[in-house]
Amino acid sequence: MSVVLNIETTAKNAKNASYKLASLDTEIKNRALEAIALNIEKNKEKIIAANELDLNEAQNMVEKGNLSTSLYSRLKLDEDKIKIMIQGIYDVAKLEDPVNKIIGAVELDQDLELYKVSCPLGVIGVIFESRPDVVPQIVALAVKSSNAVLLKGGIEAFNTNKILIEVITEALNFIPEFPKNAINLLKTREDVAEMLKMDKFIDLIIPRGGNSLVKYIQENTKIPVLGHADGICHIYTDEMADLAKSIKITLDSKIQYPSACNAVETILVHENIAKNYLPCLIRELREKEVTVKGDKTVQDLVSNIITATEDDWKTEYSDKTVSIKVVKDIYEAIEHINNYGSGHTDCIITENKENIEIFMNLVDSAGVYHNVSTRFADGFRYGLGAEVGISTNKTHARGPVGLEGLVIYKYKLFGNGQTVSEYSGYAGKKFKHTKIK
Amino acid sequence: MSVVLNIETTAKNAKNASYKLASLDTEIKNRALEAIALNIEKNKEKIIAANELDLNEAQNMVEKGNLSTSLYSRLKLDEDKIKIMIQGIYDVAKLEDPVNKIIGAVELDQDLELYKVSCPLGVIGVIFESRPDVVPQIVALAVKSSNAVLLKGGIEAFNTNKILIEVITEALNFIPEFPKNAINLLKTREDVAEMLKMDKFIDLIIPRGGNSLVKYIQENTKIPVLGHADGICHIYTDEMADLAKSIKITLDSKIQYPSACNAVETILVHENIAKNYLPCLIRELREKEVTVKGDKTVQDLVSNIITATEDDWKTEYSDKTVSIKVVKDIYEAIEHINNYGSGHTDCIITENKENIEIFMNLVDSAGVYHNVSTRFADGFRYGLGAEVGISTNKTHARGPVGLEGLVIYKYKLFGNGQTVSEYSGYAGKKFKHTKIK
Repeated sequence: MSVVLNIETTAKNAKNASYKLASLDTEIKNRALEAIALNIEKNKEKIIAANELDLNEAQNMVEKGNLSTSLYSRLKLDEDKIKIMIQGIYDVAKLEDPVNKIIGAVELDQDLELYKVSCPLGVIGVIFESRPDVVPQIVALAVKSSNAVLLKGGIEAFNTNKILIEVITEALNFIPEFPKNAINLLKTREDVAEMLKMDKFIDLIIPRGGNSLVKYIQENTKIPVLGHADGICHIYTDEMADLAKSIKITLDSKIQYPSACNAVETILVHENIAKNYLPCLIRELREKEVTVKGDKTVQDLVSNIITATEDDWKTEYSDKTVSIKVVKDIYEAIEHINNYGSGHTDCIITENKENIEIFMNLVDSAGVYHNVSTRFADGFRYGLGAEVGISTNKTHARGPVGLEGLVIYKYKLFGNGQTVSEYSGYAGKKFKHTKIK
Repeated sequence: MSVVLNIETTAKNAKNASYKLASLDTEIKNRALEAIALNIEKNKEKIIAANELDLNEAQNMVEKGNLSTSLYSRLKLDEDKIKIMIQGIYDVAKLEDPVNKIIGAVELDQDLELYKVSCPLGVIGVIFESRPDVVPQIVALAVKSSNAVLLKGGIEAFNTNKILIEVITEALNFIPEFPKNAINLLKTREDVAEMLKMDKFIDLIIPRGGNSLVKYIQENTKIPVLGHADGICHIYTDEMADLAKSIKITLDSKIQYPSACNAVETILVHENIAKNYLPCLIRELREKEVTVKGDKTVQDLVSNIITATEDDWKTEYSDKTVSIKVVKDIYEAIEHINNYGSGHTDCIITENKENIEIFMNLVDSAGVYHNVSTRFADGFRYGLGAEVGISTNKTHARGPVGLEGLVIYKYKLFGNGQTVSEYSGYAGKKFKHTKIK
């Protein structure tokens, strides 16, 4: 049973397990994944029954107004969702093992070889809300990347998360090489704050949830956090844009899934096309029930536009609202994006090659797009296979992050008694630095 | 003049400069480096004169006991040191440009191509003590990697740092493409604490100084910190070790440069060889004036050994002191290293292949070594060309870090009007995900 009381002990045990995980063969990890998938299939009725306990409690909370109906629907598991869960585990099994890959190798001198080899981070802490399908997904990614994991789910999914971890642990017990204490669920009563203090044992925190959860975590831990708080994405429609294309892309970016982090929030339009373009664009947006806010120029061109204030440029609406600003040129657009954006995903619509290059080079975001919907910012669409999250960090991993965000590297140096003294001073031995790989 | 008063304004201007730096051609950056090198050569007398002002002040501080003589000697610049400084800049110019490299490329579908391209981090904050030669070194690395930089040196080197930045800025003014405000020296009166709050503008902090400086910085900023506080390195001498080789490696690791972060602090010895090995090793260490501390077993084997306590296992002596522990097997050695080490550099001495593999896989450090001095942990010895620092982080960059630690990547997606709607649902278009590079 991996549901335990003391976070520090759990984290310490996970750290010890992580050292052993680091040298597991790919074949054993894939066997572990298969065992998990099979055991979830075998126990699906038990899982659905546990989920019903959570759903009953959640129903009361919804009625009391303490839980939104969208969270309720994300909490619910059925046979179809369990099928997708299982398929997801098999998909991760098929991915290339990110561990123990030789990234580079150099012969420093005879019998002195340096290898840069990928290795797991160690212990990953994942904090997530309601969706219990995060459990097998994160466990699969952790197993494949040889990381231990501490999962901390929301209280509303406690019974479901608990049974999932029990089923996973039972499966892993059938793989004798797989270390104990690698996969852990923290008891929901425990405070997230406790986990955030475990920088001695936890190497990376991945928050999976809303903006306020992510911000709270970023502000309250010394542990590196992989993720994003805001997704304030922009589309800049250049004076050289194909306007029909621009409308099509903008609509998709805003309404295909408005609450997604990669949905567009602010539209910037070159002043030379504003008069022709904006009335059409705004008509189309309004037809799709999008609320439009705009600056003075927009208001002058189209009636009944709500005033966009400074605050709007900093807002991720996460619903069918958009703000529009008219800019004098591409540089003002870029400045606006770098100033107000969240470094997530920003797009230029243009047919002008030079402007594409300017935008792509000067906009400092994880994703810079040309003539394509911002909604493409996603690990599956990028072909990463599985997604750990989308990062707006500037270090480690940026944009949609797959398994490679869960590994780092170590240097292995193989020698034969060499000392640094021998290589020191003018008469010292010289390094070869011959690239092996 | 880049010596300014307000840190926030400086940081903001640096951020704006960083966007422009991102798209500079390699050729322009190399021209900028050459201009800097030439202007330092041209102004060497002025630099030495400014340095003398600092040295006079420092002499007073040394006499009052407020500055150590080793800091004084690091502060001192002469013609030779300036020559090395200039050579270092030319060396960086010769390094491969780390920016704008295509890391990977995938055709998601027809006319929909995704490129993962390296790009600069943005603004690097460097906090360093006394050594003014850090200024041209960091500036060269920043220029080559297209990053803006905020330098914050110690008050004892203020005049030297100031003239160096003036000379560098003058040189950069001759390169019209090079943005203003990219290279900045913060006035020494200003508080480091102010700089550490600038997470909106600074993307990475690199502390270059002692343990207490690094720890203070790590504990007082939200900005990622690249570096290491402790360097508690170990050598484990296995029962299958060549003992002569082991003594040679151990002596080099301890005495070649005892205050270096990659010097060995704790020696672990397999119990089966302790009786033969330790008397020889300790005799050699004592001949080199190394103070030896040891556990009970060591004390039983050799007389006059100071007791090593729990605190010793956690101590970076940074001088000619070493602690020795006898372990029952390789696993106890590994556990000790993972528990008390700093994840810097740890070495096994053995002739047994299986034990090499166990050690290299299970020890969770930036450098894991076989039969070679821990003192090899260094960017120049690794062939990186120039070193930003040595990182014991588990994310972003680990071990000796070269220019690659100053870059990240962005995703560039080039499309032709595609929307996510077209690719959604069972009837939706399918992605190709064909690897281009």
